[in-house]
Amino acid sequence: MSEANHDAYMQEAINEARKGLATGGIPVGCVIVLNGEIIGRGYNQHVQQNSVIKHAEMSALENMGKLCSTDYQKCTVYTTLSPCPMCSGAIRLFGIKNIVIGENKTFLGDESLLKSEGVSLVVLNNLECIGLMNQFIQQHPEIWHEDIGQ
Amino acid sequence: MSEANHDAYMQEAINEARKGLATGGIPVGCVIVLNGEIIGRGYNQHVQQNSVIKHAEMSALENMGKLCSTDYQKCTVYTTLSPCPMCSGAIRLFGIKNIVIGENKTFLGDESLLKSEGVSLVVLNNLECIGLMNQFIQQHPEIWHEDIGQ
Repeated sequence: MSEANHDAYMQEAINEARKGLATGGIPVGCVIVLNGEIIGRGYNQHVQQNSVIKHAEMSALENMGKLCSTDYQKCTVYTTLSPCPMCSGAIRLFGIKNIVIGENKTFLGDESLLKSEGVSLVVLNNLECIGLMNQFIQQHPEIWHEDIGQ
Repeated sequence: MSEANHDAYMQEAINEARKGLATGGIPVGCVIVLNGEIIGRGYNQHVQQNSVIKHAEMSALENMGKLCSTDYQKCTVYTTLSPCPMCSGAIRLFGIKNIVIGENKTFLGDESLLKSEGVSLVVLNNLECIGLMNQFIQQHPEIWHEDIGQ
């Protein structure tokens, strides 16, 4: 997959993050791509649905619905933020093998564990993703820390 | 915590599993206990809510709502089945330190990883938990394998 494609899909994940921000939530977004098509999308619903489990990746996985294992293996997850242990665990459970991460500067998730299990990670360190998170954490540190169990 | 307490709380988790079975779903249940009180409960909603993320532990965590990190650390998760990578990841994210597992004969989750991070695990290998899962897997193998991404 080319870098250009990565940027286009990441922009879709950023669009999801901005939907989350616009509805009062944490600006993390995710899209899931299979055979070039976006088949799942979502954003963090910690605030909006008062849910501790609806991180962006979890929302996108739920929105996508059920796939067979061979299709999961062909998916690429585009997430604006490094995936936390819960979201990384879901990715490991379903056998997804490719993740493109918007940034891991404001939060570093379970990247080592994912790599050790053969998952391919591309970290873009996209300035828009970093800016969204930095601004949110500065304005709402208590919501952010609650979301990551701190 | 005494063994007697473990059995009483596990029976509550089994009650949740039976609610799941009675509504057409996978018989895995969970309760979460803080200071002797059940503050979260749930069962697998793969079938009922058509959700790939609503395992029993995830449902119970969502049902429980938001806790501060010191309270998460004092919680004990009672789950009828060994927690999969997603549910184990959620437990790691929130810093829960104690898990009592009904059984790990029909499915072995991320127990090694949890132990390596200092989480205390008690495995009861409760015959009722094993029986519920064995019967369900025999009757609906396709639903079960889909639930664990196989």
